[in-house]
Amino acid sequence: MALNAFRITEEPYYHSIANEIALFEAAYSARMPMMLKGPTGSGKTRFVEHMAWRLGRPLVTVACHEDMTASDLVGRFLLDAGGTVWHDGPLTQAVRHGGICYLDEIVEARQDTTVVIHPLTDSRRVLPLEKRGELVTAHPDFQLVISYNPGYQSVLKDLKESTKQRFAAIEFGHPSFDAETRIVCTEAEVPEEVAARLVRIAASSRNLKGHGLREGASTRMLIHAARLVARGVALATACDIALVLPITDDADLRDAVRAAIAVAAA
Amino acid sequence: MALNAFRITEEPYYHSIANEIALFEAAYSARMPMMLKGPTGSGKTRFVEHMAWRLGRPLVTVACHEDMTASDLVGRFLLDAGGTVWHDGPLTQAVRHGGICYLDEIVEARQDTTVVIHPLTDSRRVLPLEKRGELVTAHPDFQLVISYNPGYQSVLKDLKESTKQRFAAIEFGHPSFDAETRIVCTEAEVPEEVAARLVRIAASSRNLKGHGLREGASTRMLIHAARLVARGVALATACDIALVLPITDDADLRDAVRAAIAVAAA
Amino acid sequence: MALNAFRITEEPYYHSIANEIALFEAAYSARMPMMLKGPTGSGKTRFVEHMAWRLGRPLVTVACHEDMTASDLVGRFLLDAGGTVWHDGPLTQAVRHGGICYLDEIVEARQDTTVVIHPLTDSRRVLPLEKRGELVTAHPDFQLVISYNPGYQSVLKDLKESTKQRFAAIEFGHPSFDAETRIVCTEAEVPEEVAARLVRIAASSRNLKGHGLREGASTRMLIHAARLVARGVALATACDIALVLPITDDADLRDAVRAAIAVAAA
Amino acid sequence: MALNAFRITEEPYYHSIANEIALFEAAYSARMPMMLKGPTGSGKTRFVEHMAWRLGRPLVTVACHEDMTASDLVGRFLLDAGGTVWHDGPLTQAVRHGGICYLDEIVEARQDTTVVIHPLTDSRRVLPLEKRGELVTAHPDFQLVISYNPGYQSVLKDLKESTKQRFAAIEFGHPSFDAETRIVCTEAEVPEEVAARLVRIAASSRNLKGHGLREGASTRMLIHAARLVARGVALATACDIALVLPITDDADLRDAVRAAIAVAAA
Amino acid sequence: MALNAFRITEEPYYHSIANEIALFEAAYSARMPMMLKGPTGSGKTRFVEHMAWRLGRPLVTVACHEDMTASDLVGRFLLDAGGTVWHDGPLTQAVRHGGICYLDEIVEARQDTTVVIHPLTDSRRVLPLEKRGELVTAHPDFQLVISYNPGYQSVLKDLKESTKQRFAAIEFGHPSFDAETRIVCTEAEVPEEVAARLVRIAASSRNLKGHGLREGASTRMLIHAARLVARGVALATACDIALVLPITDDADLRDAVRAAIAVAAA
Amino acid sequence: MALNAFRITEEPYYHSIANEIALFEAAYSARMPMMLKGPTGSGKTRFVEHMAWRLGRPLVTVACHEDMTASDLVGRFLLDAGGTVWHDGPLTQAVRHGGICYLDEIVEARQDTTVVIHPLTDSRRVLPLEKRGELVTAHPDFQLVISYNPGYQSVLKDLKESTKQRFAAIEFGHPSFDAETRIVCTEAEVPEEVAARLVRIAASSRNLKGHGLREGASTRMLIHAARLVARGVALATACDIALVLPITDDADLRDAVRAAIAVAAA
Repeated sequence: MALNAFRITEEPYYHSIANEIALFEAAYSARMPMMLKGPTGSGKTRFVEHMAWRLGRPLVTVACHEDMTASDLVGRFLLDAGGTVWHDGPLTQAVRHGGICYLDEIVEARQDTTVVIHPLTDSRRVLPLEKRGELVTAHPDFQLVISYNPGYQSVLKDLKESTKQRFAAIEFGHPSFDAETRIVCTEAEVPEEVAARLVRIAASSRNLKGHGLREGASTRMLIHAARLVARGVALATACDIALVLPITDDADLRDAVRAAIAVAAA
Repeated sequence: MALNAFRITEEPYYHSIANEIALFEAAYSARMPMMLKGPTGSGKTRFVEHMAWRLGRPLVTVACHEDMTASDLVGRFLLDAGGTVWHDGPLTQAVRHGGICYLDEIVEARQDTTVVIHPLTDSRRVLPLEKRGELVTAHPDFQLVISYNPGYQSVLKDLKESTKQRFAAIEFGHPSFDAETRIVCTEAEVPEEVAARLVRIAASSRNLKGHGLREGASTRMLIHAARLVARGVALATACDIALVLPITDDADLRDAVRAAIAVAAA
Repeated sequence: MALNAFRITEEPYYHSIANEIALFEAAYSARMPMMLKGPTGSGKTRFVEHMAWRLGRPLVTVACHEDMTASDLVGRFLLDAGGTVWHDGPLTQAVRHGGICYLDEIVEARQDTTVVIHPLTDSRRVLPLEKRGELVTAHPDFQLVISYNPGYQSVLKDLKESTKQRFAAIEFGHPSFDAETRIVCTEAEVPEEVAARLVRIAASSRNLKGHGLREGASTRMLIHAARLVARGVALATACDIALVLPITDDADLRDAVRAAIAVAAA
Repeated sequence: MALNAFRITEEPYYHSIANEIALFEAAYSARMPMMLKGPTGSGKTRFVEHMAWRLGRPLVTVACHEDMTASDLVGRFLLDAGGTVWHDGPLTQAVRHGGICYLDEIVEARQDTTVVIHPLTDSRRVLPLEKRGELVTAHPDFQLVISYNPGYQSVLKDLKESTKQRFAAIEFGHPSFDAETRIVCTEAEVPEEVAARLVRIAASSRNLKGHGLREGASTRMLIHAARLVARGVALATACDIALVLPITDDADLRDAVRAAIAVAAA
Repeated sequence: MALNAFRITEEPYYHSIANEIALFEAAYSARMPMMLKGPTGSGKTRFVEHMAWRLGRPLVTVACHEDMTASDLVGRFLLDAGGTVWHDGPLTQAVRHGGICYLDEIVEARQDTTVVIHPLTDSRRVLPLEKRGELVTAHPDFQLVISYNPGYQSVLKDLKESTKQRFAAIEFGHPSFDAETRIVCTEAEVPEEVAARLVRIAASSRNLKGHGLREGASTRMLIHAARLVARGVALATACDIALVLPITDDADLRDAVRAAIAVAAA
Repeated sequence: MALNAFRITEEPYYHSIANEIALFEAAYSARMPMMLKGPTGSGKTRFVEHMAWRLGRPLVTVACHEDMTASDLVGRFLLDAGGTVWHDGPLTQAVRHGGICYLDEIVEARQDTTVVIHPLTDSRRVLPLEKRGELVTAHPDFQLVISYNPGYQSVLKDLKESTKQRFAAIEFGHPSFDAETRIVCTEAEVPEEVAARLVRIAASSRNLKGHGLREGASTRMLIHAARLVARGVALATACDIALVLPITDDADLRDAVRAAIAVAAA
């Protein structure tokens, strides 16, 4: 498929938190491999979409998982009427034609996936297609970006030191009160007053993190609740459906979160 | 196959418990990904069939299991007379043509299955067919629904936090006495008096939950017993066959359940 | 292959123990999924053959094992001169054409096998052929029967609660003295006196169950011994070959079983 | 391939120990499935070859191992110029054409292999070729024989109770002094005096079983030593090469075995 | 593909540390298999590129990983219009045509990969292509080089003794202050003063190794920081992005590294 | 491929240690399966090459590993223009055409590999090609030889008793001082004085075995050091590169080995 399908034609909404846009531009001008760190729903995927649009590069996103093989990234031979024909994988397409390749949650992938990117992330900037016997030199515009959620890292499943060292990193957290309120307003099309109340609720739930909750409510979950409110669901019910029920089945914990919601919503 | 094969033409019998129909309609109008939570036999599958009928959308149901691969959901190349031809999987069909895709017991599936749905459950609403090099944008009518049985969740096999956060949730439990009686009457075509007696028996068995029984009798099991009664099997025998023998092999536990049945049936 | 190959044309010999024939007929008339429970060699397979003959339905038997895949049950694409052609698996044949499908020792199978039967065992009565994109509605005569040996169930390998609840159950044990004597007479063509002596020996061996023996001698083993006797082998030797040597290699246990045999044979 | 390739045209040398030939003939006349039990090198394989010759049946031997699949036994589709063509596996050949199928060390095989033989070992005597959709009824002359080494059985890898019960068993041990001497003479073409000395050595080594040695010297190993002696190797050296070095690397144990050899050889 | 694609036409920048160039030349003149030992980012890959250029040999680099099979190295049959055609893998290409084959991080590979190189590393100098039935004698110019990071070796994953013995070894560590400063200057095009400050920072971070950090900053990471500085990013920010954030998520450790940076940067 | 490619036309240099050549000739004249035992680098592979040359038989060597399948040994069907065509594996070639098949480090292989050789190592001398349905009778000149390193045997990975018993064994250790000196002279083309000094160094390093070193320096490693010396590398440096660095990363152990080298080299 033409890489043009991966061009982002409309500006993706992104609310800048600090100097991350300038830092990414500096890194891209050096074609430095980048790692975006941060919890789920903190905007890493949206940021890379925004940067791809800003830099005018096609964006190839791959959601990594433990059953993904190197061939899923690099490409494979498929049987055609006239025999086997090589099909470039998403990484190879980006390497060849100068896109940004975004490997989402790379720590989930098997080692063959992470090793395959090594020669792309040092001075060689090449991708060996071993099964095809081809050595692809990266297009001058190609850049590799990975995401990484520190909260998930464990001894068993962490990036190898020799992989981490190949990336410079930008860190993401929850946005400020004002920023998050504006994001919820914009994405769910609710009045600022509703958005602000939901952001206060989120802050309460995030305080419960570590007291049984692995993570507090993300911005994405607030947008869910706000969209239900916008469709006539009562705020308490919307919070229950979007912030409480999906996250925990523990009755005590549910009560604690609901109490925090009630206070913040008041 | 045409998605029309998955249209539900007759109203599936569903007895509403609370405001779940209105909540689902609000969620669907925002195309919000939904999680149906609840124990086995509590009516989650029937509810989604009812909603698909009510909303006039085709319903593609996939029973997840630990040997299911992402290809089973997304599609694969098959060898034809003229070479390999791509065949859309059930998820891709629903995404392309605007159906509701219901992933039943998604927690059983391997990670590649759960990760594949991520880009469908955020603002992107796309499904990358990596093996085919195609990025399918979801039909405006497409919605994703998953089911989840909290009683089964364990440390080893639970949805990832980053997956849970993408869904709003509706919870299902056992229906009220009156509701369950009406369901048994309707489904098994037995007199209300028989149905009521069976529902009382079910309540007794549910009280034994935690005292050796992992779950009490479900509505489905009551319907089994009622159908045997309707075919001339004595109530005690029918309860034994449908409520006791399938559930436990422990002699003491069987006696306890039978005693509870005898009291409730009296 | 035509399902007719699976029609049972001669009455399989079956000695009824209690009301199991009537119960199965009631269940079949409701097309209720059935579970046959009981130890090895207790006649579950013979019973389902007898019922298939009695109900005039073809019987498709599948011996489950841990390397069996869902495709082995459901069907697969095979490469033909003109490309890939779909071949229905044994379950699909029974579903399409109205046979009884008997899944022997289903607990041995992998989860994808057990999950595949879920939509066949509730009100939907459909079998989704995901790889083919077809939704097969069960023939009105189709019934699903599974066998289950409670002695084998363990924490690691047991049916899921959500599977068990879908079946009504009939339980099998060792037949009565008279019944078993008649079975051995009929099957091995030995005089009643020989059969009776062997059944008494079996009773002794079954008393040792739990004292080192996992199961006592089954009816099938008695028939083996009887057939050897019918061919001129001495009773003690026949019992050794058919009842002792296959079951245990522990010298003390062998002596105990032989002593029990000697007493019972006297 | 024609099963005739598996006919044994010359009498395989076999020295009978007890009444095992008559017992096997009785079992074969009832087509009873047989289990040959005994340690390695005790003559189980030779016995079944002898019986196949004596009964005039082709013998299909399969050495089982943990990577063997049911398809290796039953058959598979192979791609030919005109598409896929079914090829019967060794078990199917024996079933169809009336051979004796000998599954050597069946306990090593995966469960799908052992389950595949169940319908062949009860009154059905059929082999379902699930992938081909064919139900092969066994040829009247077909018999199934398995071997089983009790010394190897463990909790993790043992035949299932439901498999063991399907077989009658004959047990093999080390032959008597005179019998073993004659076997060594015949097989290695050495004078009786040499053979006798080696058999005495074997007896000594077998006494060390349990004191570090898992098994003593087998008849096969004695034949190895005898053949080296027949080619001019000194008895002590021949024993070292054939009886000591292959079995243990423990220096003390080697000295113990060598001392036993020295005494017995004197 | 022609091995010429793997010729290195421009001298790769390499700053010699000791006598490693002369030693490698001596080893190459004896075609001795070589092992390059050292931590990540210590220049092993750059060294082998430099030597390949200096010796005028094509360089075939393979990044090893635990999912790599022997076929990935040696070659495989691929289906073409006219049937299966053999394609040499990267190792076979180097063996046949006289290249240097560099197996990077060989300890990550599965055993079949390491065993495949054995006959290439003793007097035989052959590569058996078992699947093709060909015995390739190595081209007189062929040499095998592997890399090995001692910091990663564990009991579970280490080279077998019988593999290690086949290689002579050269060891790599961090370069001297002057050498590293010159490398950073050259690679990132920054003034010597900036480079020197970064090298001092690296020394501080390397002192923290063992106090929570698995490895200190590598030369590669210094170059990342320097390149960001060259693009206008403040030194402290550049160090944070390139030296701190990618390496640790521990807040205390981050503070310690930042403090060390502040001191060294002053 | 013609087995002639595996004929050894030039006498491989082999320095005999004891009577192993005569013993192997006696064993070959009885076509007895042989096991060569000994540590890495002790000359087992060279010995079997020498014997194959001396006996005038082609030698097929297979380096076993844990990912090798029985098909890699026996052969497989490959897809050709006209369908699938059988290709003999290396073992089958040797069996059919009368070569010596040498399975190097067989203990590394999976069980299906070791079981496949059983019928070749008893009186049957046949190789069943189950997938092809062919029973290959071994050529009268065929012999099977395996190697086995006792130092590696563990409970988890050892040859089965029933496999070991099928082989007679010859044991290899380090050669005598004079023998090893002559080997190093001949292979590395260094003066006897240099070789002798290296052999003394090896003796010192072998004394450290058990004090941290798993094995001392092998003859192969001495040849490496000698070849570097022959190319102008100083003796101490050559020993470091060839004897110390490849073997251990422990600083204390390195010092101990270096001290031993210094003393022996003096």
